[in-house]
Amino acid sequence: MTAVPTPLLRIAQDGASETVARELAEEVPIALEFNGIGYAVLMATPADLEDLIAGFLLAERLQQRSDSTVAVALHPAEGGIVARATLPAEQARGLLDRVRHRASDSSCGLCGIENIAQAMRPLPRVSAESVANEAAIFHSLGALGAHQHLNARTGAVHAAALVAADGSIRLVREDVGRHNAFDKLIGAMRRAGLDWDGGFALLTSRCSYELVEKAALADCPMLVTISAPTALAIDRAREAGLQLRVLARPDAFLAVQP
Amino acid sequence: MTAVPTPLLRIAQDGASETVARELAEEVPIALEFNGIGYAVLMATPADLEDLIAGFLLAERLQQRSDSTVAVALHPAEGGIVARATLPAEQARGLLDRVRHRASDSSCGLCGIENIAQAMRPLPRVSAESVANEAAIFHSLGALGAHQHLNARTGAVHAAALVAADGSIRLVREDVGRHNAFDKLIGAMRRAGLDWDGGFALLTSRCSYELVEKAALADCPMLVTISAPTALAIDRAREAGLQLRVLARPDAFLAVQP
Repeated sequence: MTAVPTPLLRIAQDGASETVARELAEEVPIALEFNGIGYAVLMATPADLEDLIAGFLLAERLQQRSDSTVAVALHPAEGGIVARATLPAEQARGLLDRVRHRASDSSCGLCGIENIAQAMRPLPRVSAESVANEAAIFHSLGALGAHQHLNARTGAVHAAALVAADGSIRLVREDVGRHNAFDKLIGAMRRAGLDWDGGFALLTSRCSYELVEKAALADCPMLVTISAPTALAIDRAREAGLQLRVLARPDAFLAVQP
Repeated sequence: MTAVPTPLLRIAQDGASETVARELAEEVPIALEFNGIGYAVLMATPADLEDLIAGFLLAERLQQRSDSTVAVALHPAEGGIVARATLPAEQARGLLDRVRHRASDSSCGLCGIENIAQAMRPLPRVSAESVANEAAIFHSLGALGAHQHLNARTGAVHAAALVAADGSIRLVREDVGRHNAFDKLIGAMRRAGLDWDGGFALLTSRCSYELVEKAALADCPMLVTISAPTALAIDRAREAGLQLRVLARPDAFLAVQP
């Protein structure tokens, strides 16, 4: 279940009121347990959770692009969902490093300056290239809406799309959180063995630095977002050699100079 | 500095291109150190950081509404800002509990089910009441834009406003993150000794459950958001007795039945 029908009272500017039925997007705590360790709780729309976790493991640098995806077991729990996965021994080392980092965190082993450095770890250089031209970007902007099924029902749900070099939409994932939507897309690509193939990623959100990081770690050659970027997102994209196109609207978009 | 002038290449649908100068919102890692403990790194727009921390301490339940705000020392660091504050001994106990929680987290003391329960802790009942009527809500929607100074320059920046019972805007804070904007507003109110006084909070974002939690912990009687709520936000608002008005637009808004 990803949309919940809910009666709401619509109050118009002229004072008229009526009860309307709206579908609302679900947002549920997803507790991630990797190798028996409670790793994090994500708030997410409970669809495509296997994709979410496949993408999250890459974004957290617990897995590399060349690693096989792992099986995920989903267990409904009181108030949320527990998602369990087991990483192979050599990847679990990274997991233990992160956990040790968190433990030392709490015993003052890491100060604020080290925490900033940890948050701003260097990004890999993107090796893939996009051959999509301007026409492909404008085409994808017009085509995306028809693929946003949950958003059509509920509104306020972000979409992340894999777009082919010719601007056609190949794959879409949706979530109340823009980060989750992108993790789901990247995870779905990993699980299906899909690559960028000269295309790009299109996101309905603003372009914050985390989206740039997720793109770079997934070797995505170009990220197109419908809303504005932050200054940090542009800095990080230049560092990674990721092409950015922002404020992409039907009439024009803005290209960030490399 | 909260806006960074950046040259971008504008590419129009007809193929015309030109370089345009845009101001972009800053997004900077803020490392929080409380009582010498590295607590968290927030990504935020580096303005009103003392307000941000005063609100964050309430939202994290490290401080109560009746507690005095604490002094914050800001130290520029490589790539970000370190914010240091010292909580009085009796409040530091809560800090140590959180830190122990995190430590036990990493030694498997908490499983996913316990982590979900921790994320969904019960909310206090709101005791304040709003006397603002529909006209006040519509008035505030029209009045807010003139107060969104950073958004006017950069776009894609959220605002949180304290609105008086008659719909006039009393105080506004802005940030690239909606949570930060609301923490900043609540923190600014704490620092200035302002109360809701029968008014309400107006946010330019969608209504996710965290905003409802922040509102309840700040004893805010009514939360009005411009975009849609999630199903969980409505559940949590009912639990806390918080009035919700969502999808607030110039022609109509939707009221959530208590």
